[in-house]
Amino acid sequence: MNEDKYFQIRTDLAVEAREMYVEEEKQTEDIEGVLLKEQKIKGFQVTDVRVDKTGEKKIDKKAGRYITLETDAIKNGDSNQQQATAEVLSVLLADLLKENNINESAQCLVVGLGNDYVTPDALGPQTVKKILVTKHLFTYHPEMVAEGYRPVSAFSPGVMGVTGMETSDIIQGIVKELNPDFIIAIDALASRSIDRVNSTIQVSDTGIHPGSGVNNKRKALSYENFGIPVISIGVPTVVDAVTITSDTIDYVFKHFGREFKEKDRPSKRLAPASLTFGKKTLTESDMPSQTEKANLFGMIGKLDETEKRQLIKEVLSPLGYNLMVTPKEVDSYIHDLAHLIATGINGALHENVNSELANSFTR
Amino acid sequence: MNEDKYFQIRTDLAVEAREMYVEEEKQTEDIEGVLLKEQKIKGFQVTDVRVDKTGEKKIDKKAGRYITLETDAIKNGDSNQQQATAEVLSVLLADLLKENNINESAQCLVVGLGNDYVTPDALGPQTVKKILVTKHLFTYHPEMVAEGYRPVSAFSPGVMGVTGMETSDIIQGIVKELNPDFIIAIDALASRSIDRVNSTIQVSDTGIHPGSGVNNKRKALSYENFGIPVISIGVPTVVDAVTITSDTIDYVFKHFGREFKEKDRPSKRLAPASLTFGKKTLTESDMPSQTEKANLFGMIGKLDETEKRQLIKEVLSPLGYNLMVTPKEVDSYIHDLAHLIATGINGALHENVNSELANSFTR
Amino acid sequence: MNEDKYFQIRTDLAVEAREMYVEEEKQTEDIEGVLLKEQKIKGFQVTDVRVDKTGEKKIDKKAGRYITLETDAIKNGDSNQQQATAEVLSVLLADLLKENNINESAQCLVVGLGNDYVTPDALGPQTVKKILVTKHLFTYHPEMVAEGYRPVSAFSPGVMGVTGMETSDIIQGIVKELNPDFIIAIDALASRSIDRVNSTIQVSDTGIHPGSGVNNKRKALSYENFGIPVISIGVPTVVDAVTITSDTIDYVFKHFGREFKEKDRPSKRLAPASLTFGKKTLTESDMPSQTEKANLFGMIGKLDETEKRQLIKEVLSPLGYNLMVTPKEVDSYIHDLAHLIATGINGALHENVNSELANSFTR
Amino acid sequence: MNEDKYFQIRTDLAVEAREMYVEEEKQTEDIEGVLLKEQKIKGFQVTDVRVDKTGEKKIDKKAGRYITLETDAIKNGDSNQQQATAEVLSVLLADLLKENNINESAQCLVVGLGNDYVTPDALGPQTVKKILVTKHLFTYHPEMVAEGYRPVSAFSPGVMGVTGMETSDIIQGIVKELNPDFIIAIDALASRSIDRVNSTIQVSDTGIHPGSGVNNKRKALSYENFGIPVISIGVPTVVDAVTITSDTIDYVFKHFGREFKEKDRPSKRLAPASLTFGKKTLTESDMPSQTEKANLFGMIGKLDETEKRQLIKEVLSPLGYNLMVTPKEVDSYIHDLAHLIATGINGALHENVNSELANSFTR
Repeated sequence: MNEDKYFQIRTDLAVEAREMYVEEEKQTEDIEGVLLKEQKIKGFQVTDVRVDKTGEKKIDKKAGRYITLETDAIKNGDSNQQQATAEVLSVLLADLLKENNINESAQCLVVGLGNDYVTPDALGPQTVKKILVTKHLFTYHPEMVAEGYRPVSAFSPGVMGVTGMETSDIIQGIVKELNPDFIIAIDALASRSIDRVNSTIQVSDTGIHPGSGVNNKRKALSYENFGIPVISIGVPTVVDAVTITSDTIDYVFKHFGREFKEKDRPSKRLAPASLTFGKKTLTESDMPSQTEKANLFGMIGKLDETEKRQLIKEVLSPLGYNLMVTPKEVDSYIHDLAHLIATGINGALHENVNSELANSFTR
Repeated sequence: MNEDKYFQIRTDLAVEAREMYVEEEKQTEDIEGVLLKEQKIKGFQVTDVRVDKTGEKKIDKKAGRYITLETDAIKNGDSNQQQATAEVLSVLLADLLKENNINESAQCLVVGLGNDYVTPDALGPQTVKKILVTKHLFTYHPEMVAEGYRPVSAFSPGVMGVTGMETSDIIQGIVKELNPDFIIAIDALASRSIDRVNSTIQVSDTGIHPGSGVNNKRKALSYENFGIPVISIGVPTVVDAVTITSDTIDYVFKHFGREFKEKDRPSKRLAPASLTFGKKTLTESDMPSQTEKANLFGMIGKLDETEKRQLIKEVLSPLGYNLMVTPKEVDSYIHDLAHLIATGINGALHENVNSELANSFTR
Repeated sequence: MNEDKYFQIRTDLAVEAREMYVEEEKQTEDIEGVLLKEQKIKGFQVTDVRVDKTGEKKIDKKAGRYITLETDAIKNGDSNQQQATAEVLSVLLADLLKENNINESAQCLVVGLGNDYVTPDALGPQTVKKILVTKHLFTYHPEMVAEGYRPVSAFSPGVMGVTGMETSDIIQGIVKELNPDFIIAIDALASRSIDRVNSTIQVSDTGIHPGSGVNNKRKALSYENFGIPVISIGVPTVVDAVTITSDTIDYVFKHFGREFKEKDRPSKRLAPASLTFGKKTLTESDMPSQTEKANLFGMIGKLDETEKRQLIKEVLSPLGYNLMVTPKEVDSYIHDLAHLIATGINGALHENVNSELANSFTR
Repeated sequence: MNEDKYFQIRTDLAVEAREMYVEEEKQTEDIEGVLLKEQKIKGFQVTDVRVDKTGEKKIDKKAGRYITLETDAIKNGDSNQQQATAEVLSVLLADLLKENNINESAQCLVVGLGNDYVTPDALGPQTVKKILVTKHLFTYHPEMVAEGYRPVSAFSPGVMGVTGMETSDIIQGIVKELNPDFIIAIDALASRSIDRVNSTIQVSDTGIHPGSGVNNKRKALSYENFGIPVISIGVPTVVDAVTITSDTIDYVFKHFGREFKEKDRPSKRLAPASLTFGKKTLTESDMPSQTEKANLFGMIGKLDETEKRQLIKEVLSPLGYNLMVTPKEVDSYIHDLAHLIATGINGALHENVNSELANSFTR
């Protein structure tokens, strides 16, 4: 497989990387070295992807565990469902800590990546603001700390354009000075699909890698670099014009494919199939042979996903039109997401923070 | 012509409405009742469209004058060019006031439409914040007002979702109570084209009409309703997924059309044309007959602009994916735009505010 | 009584006006025309002052009802107590509406006075942001409105320095156009006492009067001017240097008076009284005759409250040091207060909004 | 001298520490080991205090140089004077760098101390936001860096209550990892005098010490700890109730002292002296012996500055009324101060940034 493609048209989400591999390689769903488990928890779709060294080479995602939690609670502005999502996140995160042999008293450094002054990139800093920090109490007032809490510190390193420094260098310096036992890093991601924006939360134990996130980093935040586990929590908050166009072409094709199937099959030779949208009707004569992508979209329809994206990108980029965009309601989405994720983290880190309590801490 | 289409797939910009009409009607560039004048001022493209009653019916934009000023200064974050743009805006606005018989002592009410808490919709309120208001001085401290100033008040009515009231009713109430001689209303618009986002400023003497702007209004802000001239200043700050997709398909087609032309013509029968992107090469055998949109995009390529948009919209809307989106740098774009427009307005309203002074007022 | 004094050294709170009158006139606690009722509700001190036409002249507060609710929940950042305070506010407000013959379907206009860009003055606008508005639903989607709601609209008129217009003129215009049945106006007040800042909420049916609030108004928001009841909700958020100094002098006196009493009385002639602070000890020989204010503070101690304030004001004002100040934690205090008051209003206005629901609306 | 007092009632400003020493020790103005130089630059008062090891023990300020720049430009909202102040700051800062043997290519780390979410404490973070950072360009695109720039990075470590970490530990970690040649740290200070709030800028080469600033630190940011020069820039943005009261008492005394002097001396035995404020007149009979503080303020008037403060503090603190307060216009003051200081720093750090250019960078 051509590794190169993935570098150019990559995704931060393991579930997407897996889907891309399946599609491109025309494989069955089973990929050697990539174990997939899907389930519903409290009604939310949770996908658990485990990648080993074999799988790492195939889908170009580092070996480790990637848990994806899907929720409509942010888009719908539904605060009850946001609270329920936070509780599920808390459970998933706690499970991942356990699997990585991180015990209840291990010291955590929470890192909020991104730029607090660019709303769609402010997810990390806004989450950090709502983290329940306790390390200073452990240091200076140990008598004030009740059972069921661990030492937690939290921090937003900013972005290179504002600080002039590599984000990983800043974190490296703090890790060496403060000696936390593990890191949780929160980052806003770029999505490769419209419908994941602000609705997919990925939790992983593989750290954060160069070129990921809304603001690209140059060095990995990882066990290899820092010597301690790095748990990452990422949510796609932006999408580029290439993705919007590519997704839309796919949706149009799926829509027509379905419509023609529904309409054609029963009455196949009896009446000509037709498709209506607005005041326009397309009949079979508009689509001579069969309902193939090629007829609907011509040459473009014949390209596979990666080729199509590459083509669109090559056209838009020189024009300066491959914008990274975000839904216009970005302010309230980021506000609610930061609240949700901080609630999930607070609940997972401190045994004694039940979700209701966690909620009141972060209001 | 089908007027209906325009209601569904409309544009706030007269230059776009005109282009749409030209394209759909396969007309020459001359439209009866629509007078077009293009010029460069200080290097910026200025398009002056005058629509009369005949033109109004054709391009579905109310009779009046629409001046469009194009600038890259916001996208490029170039503060010198932003200042230059503000100066041109000031001149264009002053000219429009003069044409509408608004003299130098006429009292102005500046209205900032939109929602201050939704960044891409906050252009109006953010601009109002930087307007040099003087009406209270004229009322309570006339001795403090120097020559060369007029009475100006400024105001942000909010949006219906937050106030529970029609925006035009609020303004109506204030107009009746305060008796300004004219209104300048600033609004964030939805764009029908990627490349106009945050780079096109439209100034018009026709007011603001139902369904326009990022937050739809139900009643016009217009001379007819308020009994005084309503000057509007609008900038597209958001774009929907339909537009992004439709524009991209057009760009891809133009790109290929040009590439094939460049490649085919010289060597027409000698060698097969080919197109390369990424690692993919398309040769003539992939495009049997001719370099038509139909070959590149199949059926989709045969649709005209309006049909194509309608199709995409009908597919995306039920999925909930026809997002209104904004560039991820929205915070700084809106900040700079508000500064630019307020500087332009302050310069146009007060004879004694030269651009440098206007600039310092709004910092 | 000298009416003049009150104009110069006034208070927005009726409880303070009453106290000032009692102190200055050396009266007993009973003032003709001023009825006082104190009680604890859910542990919060609630003072109910009813002023009639006779009382109006005495304490210089307009005839009507003034309810004062005291809470430490904001200063302490205690979200449970903030919720409890909001519930009490809701009950008090509902009672005041009933007493003013405002029924459950009467249309309400909520007005947030103050400047959204000056944090301590942003209480009104920030509260409005969290009001549950329904009027547009009653107008355009009556079928969507369930039982137990009333039509509510909400609005922030800004301040004269930003709009160039009288606040009351803007509201007047909207009232005439929209015809609400009553108004609830929220305003940040200046306190005449340190300990009331961010901890006293006054609800009244007398409207808002010239010279009150952090930003002085020139015209009353009142039944007399608008023809409909105007309920006001005010919280002191700033205090001036005169008040801080005057209060502190009083505290010092009370402190010493108490200390001397405690120390002197039991052992009166046995041992010399002494007072220690820091490394300094004052004995009776420092206070020759008796523990009078005059000995502690000399001439200043002989002045009554109003004289003392006047003196301090005359000294500080020409120096430009009579600052209006606010606690440095102003950002979080205003955030929490706006949440608390909006929750209280939403609960009082809509029968179907119980406090838990009201809370989730305003998060 | 009692060192203890200074710990309890300290000041961050060397000019104040010096004044306190002079007053308390009833010394002449000359203090051994403390060299004072006053001058006007561009109309602004500049005080240059040099403290050596002898002086350090006397006035309890670390040996080194303290330059104080006084300006009314922030309070008056005068943007021209703010620009002029920034230019003077730039010159003073450049001079201090030179004196500390920091050359034009030495690498600088700018550190913004304080809490970005608490407005009066946000001066550091807000300034950092406007610093021209170049280190990443030197590292990754050296070809893009013109002559006349040095490598600069900038950073806001947050406060311990939000991060759970000692601020100095965070900076220590970054210094070790990044190896800057010197640090410039910006901090909001608590003032010991009303009239210095938002109008005094202190630049020093002695670093920042425990207990200073609005948020107390526990470890020094200093050459001793980091091994590189630490230049500090501090502006008082808050003041406590003790200071306000104490200052006011002093102003009242000075005011009366002056008034009596003016009135009494010429006509001493001819007419009784009298003092009028409001409607009150105090005659000589109210002040039996002489115009001493003791008569005006009784025992309080006999206390020296430190004793008086200690007394007020002991009274207010247990009541919870020793608030740290800030002028209500804090939002615009901090905005303008951050702009001013960043402009000053940018101009001092980069030879090629003249003040006009520096200004446009930070807008």
